[in-house]
Amino acid sequence: MKDIRMAMIGYKFMGKAHSHAYHDMSMFFPHLPTPIKQVICGRTTGELEEARRRYGWQEAQTDWQEVVARADIDAIDISVPSNVHRDIALAAAAQGKHIFCEKPLALTLEDSKAMWQAAQTAGIVHMVGFNYRFAPAVRLAKSIIESGRLGRIYHMRAVFLQDWIVDPQFPHVWRLDKSVAGSGSLGDLGAHTIDLARYLVGEFKEVIGVEETFVKQRPMSESMTGLSAKAGSDAPMKEVTVDDATIFLARFQGGALGSFEATRFALGHRSTHAFEINGSKGSVRFDFERLNELEVYFESDDDDVRGFRRVLATDPAHAYSDVWWPAGHTIGYEHTVVHAVAEFLEAIRDGRQAVPDFGDGVMCQAVLEAVERSCDTRSWVHVEDELAAPARL
Amino acid sequence: MKDIRMAMIGYKFMGKAHSHAYHDMSMFFPHLPTPIKQVICGRTTGELEEARRRYGWQEAQTDWQEVVARADIDAIDISVPSNVHRDIALAAAAQGKHIFCEKPLALTLEDSKAMWQAAQTAGIVHMVGFNYRFAPAVRLAKSIIESGRLGRIYHMRAVFLQDWIVDPQFPHVWRLDKSVAGSGSLGDLGAHTIDLARYLVGEFKEVIGVEETFVKQRPMSESMTGLSAKAGSDAPMKEVTVDDATIFLARFQGGALGSFEATRFALGHRSTHAFEINGSKGSVRFDFERLNELEVYFESDDDDVRGFRRVLATDPAHAYSDVWWPAGHTIGYEHTVVHAVAEFLEAIRDGRQAVPDFGDGVMCQAVLEAVERSCDTRSWVHVEDELAAPARL
Amino acid sequence: MKDIRMAMIGYKFMGKAHSHAYHDMSMFFPHLPTPIKQVICGRTTGELEEARRRYGWQEAQTDWQEVVARADIDAIDISVPSNVHRDIALAAAAQGKHIFCEKPLALTLEDSKAMWQAAQTAGIVHMVGFNYRFAPAVRLAKSIIESGRLGRIYHMRAVFLQDWIVDPQFPHVWRLDKSVAGSGSLGDLGAHTIDLARYLVGEFKEVIGVEETFVKQRPMSESMTGLSAKAGSDAPMKEVTVDDATIFLARFQGGALGSFEATRFALGHRSTHAFEINGSKGSVRFDFERLNELEVYFESDDDDVRGFRRVLATDPAHAYSDVWWPAGHTIGYEHTVVHAVAEFLEAIRDGRQAVPDFGDGVMCQAVLEAVERSCDTRSWVHVEDELAAPARL
Amino acid sequence: MKDIRMAMIGYKFMGKAHSHAYHDMSMFFPHLPTPIKQVICGRTTGELEEARRRYGWQEAQTDWQEVVARADIDAIDISVPSNVHRDIALAAAAQGKHIFCEKPLALTLEDSKAMWQAAQTAGIVHMVGFNYRFAPAVRLAKSIIESGRLGRIYHMRAVFLQDWIVDPQFPHVWRLDKSVAGSGSLGDLGAHTIDLARYLVGEFKEVIGVEETFVKQRPMSESMTGLSAKAGSDAPMKEVTVDDATIFLARFQGGALGSFEATRFALGHRSTHAFEINGSKGSVRFDFERLNELEVYFESDDDDVRGFRRVLATDPAHAYSDVWWPAGHTIGYEHTVVHAVAEFLEAIRDGRQAVPDFGDGVMCQAVLEAVERSCDTRSWVHVEDELAAPARL
Repeated sequence: MKDIRMAMIGYKFMGKAHSHAYHDMSMFFPHLPTPIKQVICGRTTGELEEARRRYGWQEAQTDWQEVVARADIDAIDISVPSNVHRDIALAAAAQGKHIFCEKPLALTLEDSKAMWQAAQTAGIVHMVGFNYRFAPAVRLAKSIIESGRLGRIYHMRAVFLQDWIVDPQFPHVWRLDKSVAGSGSLGDLGAHTIDLARYLVGEFKEVIGVEETFVKQRPMSESMTGLSAKAGSDAPMKEVTVDDATIFLARFQGGALGSFEATRFALGHRSTHAFEINGSKGSVRFDFERLNELEVYFESDDDDVRGFRRVLATDPAHAYSDVWWPAGHTIGYEHTVVHAVAEFLEAIRDGRQAVPDFGDGVMCQAVLEAVERSCDTRSWVHVEDELAAPARL
Repeated sequence: MKDIRMAMIGYKFMGKAHSHAYHDMSMFFPHLPTPIKQVICGRTTGELEEARRRYGWQEAQTDWQEVVARADIDAIDISVPSNVHRDIALAAAAQGKHIFCEKPLALTLEDSKAMWQAAQTAGIVHMVGFNYRFAPAVRLAKSIIESGRLGRIYHMRAVFLQDWIVDPQFPHVWRLDKSVAGSGSLGDLGAHTIDLARYLVGEFKEVIGVEETFVKQRPMSESMTGLSAKAGSDAPMKEVTVDDATIFLARFQGGALGSFEATRFALGHRSTHAFEINGSKGSVRFDFERLNELEVYFESDDDDVRGFRRVLATDPAHAYSDVWWPAGHTIGYEHTVVHAVAEFLEAIRDGRQAVPDFGDGVMCQAVLEAVERSCDTRSWVHVEDELAAPARL
Repeated sequence: MKDIRMAMIGYKFMGKAHSHAYHDMSMFFPHLPTPIKQVICGRTTGELEEARRRYGWQEAQTDWQEVVARADIDAIDISVPSNVHRDIALAAAAQGKHIFCEKPLALTLEDSKAMWQAAQTAGIVHMVGFNYRFAPAVRLAKSIIESGRLGRIYHMRAVFLQDWIVDPQFPHVWRLDKSVAGSGSLGDLGAHTIDLARYLVGEFKEVIGVEETFVKQRPMSESMTGLSAKAGSDAPMKEVTVDDATIFLARFQGGALGSFEATRFALGHRSTHAFEINGSKGSVRFDFERLNELEVYFESDDDDVRGFRRVLATDPAHAYSDVWWPAGHTIGYEHTVVHAVAEFLEAIRDGRQAVPDFGDGVMCQAVLEAVERSCDTRSWVHVEDELAAPARL
Repeated sequence: MKDIRMAMIGYKFMGKAHSHAYHDMSMFFPHLPTPIKQVICGRTTGELEEARRRYGWQEAQTDWQEVVARADIDAIDISVPSNVHRDIALAAAAQGKHIFCEKPLALTLEDSKAMWQAAQTAGIVHMVGFNYRFAPAVRLAKSIIESGRLGRIYHMRAVFLQDWIVDPQFPHVWRLDKSVAGSGSLGDLGAHTIDLARYLVGEFKEVIGVEETFVKQRPMSESMTGLSAKAGSDAPMKEVTVDDATIFLARFQGGALGSFEATRFALGHRSTHAFEINGSKGSVRFDFERLNELEVYFESDDDDVRGFRRVLATDPAHAYSDVWWPAGHTIGYEHTVVHAVAEFLEAIRDGRQAVPDFGDGVMCQAVLEAVERSCDTRSWVHVEDELAAPARL
């Protein structure tokens, strides 16, 4: 079993989370190839060097094109903003590097299709960082659904609620700039929810949504760390070009109805990524703020003791429980990223495709664009039409 | 202060709840006129007489037209299925009787408009039984919003989830028959939610929805009590003509986005009528299954102790707390109906209009029909257009 | 089936709750004898007459001795403070009246024994108002335990937490006066918990406790309603002679360990009467502030979906569900009192003893006094020793 | 700032958690000295070597006495069962090594005093692994109490509930052997709770408890991992020599009452380490199974919106939030250990004593022994008497 020599492009929030995941691998997943943190890549020399030291990468480079061309690199981790995903991925695929790419896969469906095509042509292992799939409680939901214990699925309702930009004085940061981020709440938050919906309920058939930008202009940002940022007191105003909130309805191909919401304007919710799924035999629900828990209801329970069970997904029967701590000892956000990286490395080791892959990124992007088009046209949009549509200008 | 002589048409679930409310008045609301339970009216003599005795009405009559014409009756309570609301209300208004009418006001917007018109012409006190407004926790939400403590409202998301017909063998009952019930989950459950939305957030601007009947045919019912029913083993099948579930998006006139769901196919939810409202300064949320509680979030709290507060709305500062029990001693579903009846009687006593009145019933019906039309046409529908539209055939 | 002619001594908080229960009987329990609200009795003429009118009693009398001697009265309801229970009960029993007595049965174990003895001698139906037994969720706990679904019981931990006297300026009211109330938190709150423990786990073997009066003096009260009261600004101070809080440990005769707490000094808790019971096969837990819910855990559940179930005890399978509303429509505090009264009337109808009866009151009192003695002596006290002990002076 | 060369004795559950903490230091706490994972020490060569490789230690040694004598080691981590703590600590202190020791500090109060004495004499940095102090939500509780926002403390009630040995067939493992573990639930679980009580409420004055071993004999174990273990089908039975459960009452020196429970027989609780503290101005509560949350109540809130706030301790205002992820992104059990190690390293860097130190270990042990003595003697025991008492044989 050979080590995997990694290069990571990007070093902010996602770069930190991914670095930690590589760091943890040998300790918690010793049966997987060891990822060697060879090169970290970014544009700002000082910050990059600090990140290199802190996150334990051996080298730092500022030109990603040189990085992806290096013969001593096996895999590329793309942790930069979405507007650069495509170029890096196409170059990396052309070099035959495996790719772990943050979500959303690209700014546009066209770009994501190109990336998927390139990855398939290159025969590489490719993966998109939909980390929520890797929470043990979400795995449990998947396992319950796959085993038929929920029966036929009737409903999914899901929200991703945040509140970090409710204050109109919160500054304009890159996530609020359409040319960099692609979209706002929908692309950033809704993409995760859409991926979970596809994972758990299946493909979307058609959607209709409405989006809103409640605060149209914001003072320009001086600095950003994670989701925190500051503006100077006399900062000039800049137009917000993405949605603050998007809500949409869906029909799934399997017949279920879906209701979705992505917003950064829900005070009291730092990161409530929550869903509920109702089937003909039972229901499950999940909230990322309590990510170790899955609530499960079975109609087949004795009639005096039916009720949602609060399952703490840390028992031996639960995914990844053998890797971490005894039952009742919970894990946190970062572990979902660790698990995602483990999937990537295991796929490389086993010579199989990783899940979710760029194809999942494409399908997610198709739903995102279908939602956007439905907002623009105020009409239902079939996801298949969106997939087949020519690129929008 | 004169007593109010009541006649009630209907004696099933709602008849029971209303009878109890009248029964409780003198004990808990001694400052209001005493409602005299004069006449109960229904078609099936034996059951009617049993209801009369049990619920303490003085007389039983089978012809509602005779009842509404009686000179010794001051007010009519309409607790029958929705398809008869209009005729009774028009007749009662013509006789100058005050009217307490169950929701939804009528089968159609046209009918409800006619009822409102008749009530206004007659100068009577008229009220619609939107009882959820009368939960102390909902009153608290209203008071918080009105006082400006939530700031500008950005979001409302609300669901009314039940599960009593998920079993395909559950029989076909009147609530599943469009000609009697008007609509299904939307009219039965969604009407309540729409009313709360209007009460708390304001008027709807436009809506778009999708509805589904998951189980198209059911065995015919032999009997129904409350929401329970039985079908014989070889009962013939009958087509379900109402929606099992309807979900819809909305824009409010004040700029907020709304997301709504009404379904009878959400296993684990006997009667989850829940909403959350997010504003620029805070949020509130409510779940009817825990109807004494309101969760409240204020961004202005000190930065290390911000979080949703679970307020038990039984303190002296809360509505109706003086009427019932010491703080911490909760009330139940029926008390919301008691409070609604108290409002009706108080309005009669004070010679003012009750709230919510038939006008609220009309506006709710307009939203319901706008949602239905949006489901049929797969397009956004402006509620004002619906209000102005000619009747649909 | 004859009507039962009632006389009620007392008309405050408990008088109101009991009056309402009698009022509701014919409507919700039509198969039981109808309680006739014949006489209400109290000392303060004006307030008494107001209570009579409001709660619908036919007559008001100020001398309880005359009341219990009336030939046209079948049963006596004792809703006055505990220091008068004994005398009334002895007189009523001597007259052969059935007795529904509020808890705690008496100020002392000796008194309660005398009452029990008198009631048995008289052959009357006697009952103590331990209303918490009558919450459907508590009934469910009982049914689960009795069916063996929890297995052998290892633990009970229970608290009754209130916070209405945390403010040192809250006035001195009768509940803080040992000569009237008998004891403080322990007798008022702990009595309920002890009764539930006996009901669900069985008899106590031995106890040890510690009590505390955190605020030793308070301004004298001007008025009290329910648990609210006011003191004048220059009210004289008066010594508090009861415990603000008592906590104790217990061994049950069946081998389980118990941990108990009764306090009026737990801010944030208006009336948290909560318990959890752990057995060899499962666990249950309950909180009166969410009295419609029981949480239930079964170790026999499939190993990936084990967790506490939140059961809403409003399904057809739950006690009293047929009496009230459809599943999901909750009931409140007052309904526990209604159910208790129904038990009393049913026992009279069926010529059987009611449960819980004065014997349960005696056993509860024995535990209370054992706890008190353990606090005084700082030693473990066997409940059987307490039962056998001569009266303390 | 020099690196700290670590040697760790022990490589099981705690060895894994500690190794990970050292591993994470440079990435998340780059301003602290880097701990060099120099030597891992254990008795079983094969397992030790596997642990060395997996957890990234440079060398493995089997003789702890050689290890503590090495000149190239700065600090010793004691992660072995409690019966060996004393000898290792005394030897390490004699060599001037800093010590991070797992809890409980030792098997007996005498031993722990000796360790504390030795550590003080040696002038080393010494710390006990009471990791729960390091949950951000617990830090928040501390900060609220210290700032006076709870006022005078009246109550603490705390439980540590587990359920891993409820099955009588669960084998006899070292934690059930008094000669190795010192005590059972009390020493393993209660020690953590006692430490939190001391941290948050202050010193204990007196205690009384009762303990029980529900299952007296168990089949001998074949293997144990974390808290999981297996017995062969025909394993011989062995007597359990520790408590399955201990409950106790306490008075604190500050006047508060305390109620405590430690048990491994509470089905449904994998690791519920929960407490609530009530003061004259507010309350806080915590449950380790939701370790990112603290519930907080303030009586000073406006009277219509008082209620427990659910604070997610991931905001910038919360401890350690700058180290990890954006608000709303939770951390897990292991992070409490990471923070504890950070405290140890920071103390070394700053030349100050770590908190909690061996003195805290001694005080905790004194309370533990006072509880044990109170169980044995069935009497209240003053903790100061216990501290001053000669060693028990």
